[in-house]
Amino acid sequence: MAKVFALYKTPADPAAFDRYYRDVHVPIAKKLPGLRAYEVTRGSIGMLGGSSPYHLIAVLTFDSVNAVQAALVSPEGQATAADIGNFATGGVDILFAETGSA
Amino acid sequence: MAKVFALYKTPADPAAFDRYYRDVHVPIAKKLPGLRAYEVTRGSIGMLGGSSPYHLIAVLTFDSVNAVQAALVSPEGQATAADIGNFATGGVDILFAETGSA
Repeated sequence: MAKVFALYKTPADPAAFDRYYRDVHVPIAKKLPGLRAYEVTRGSIGMLGGSSPYHLIAVLTFDSVNAVQAALVSPEGQATAADIGNFATGGVDILFAETGSA
Repeated sequence: MAKVFALYKTPADPAAFDRYYRDVHVPIAKKLPGLRAYEVTRGSIGMLGGSSPYHLIAVLTFDSVNAVQAALVSPEGQATAADIGNFATGGVDILFAETGSA
């Protein structure tokens, strides 16, 4: 399996971010080809030993890193990436890797 | 459900980190009370639009944020936290939040 981690930093208007993310971005991202699961954090994110700079973490599961890369370059992937600029005013780091049980 | 995300930045000696993480840290962390699943990235972590500062991401699943907090303050949680200083030479951010399907 492989996972995409989208780490959204705290935006200028968290309530507006949450509405847009739920109502607009999730429906766009759910069209990504090969998407097997899509989880998001709910509510505040705690951080050990400090204050979290993150507002939301999304974890998208695919079969493989090849499937992630195919999704990212697909029309649906380009639409998803293009939409991020519409709400992620605090910035976002998008990471991906193969994953397995520890 | 709730998840703990441990974001390990690139350490001074990645090969030594990997050996220690697999052989010592995972067996310690697996004793955390209430741990339901424990996933780790394998191989390199890609980042859209840049070079990833992260070497490994671990995702630990618990039933709730309360269960995460109970695990962290338990003797096993204190042992897990204390062990991090033995290998995470690049630093680590440990985040936790309630999670659900998007």
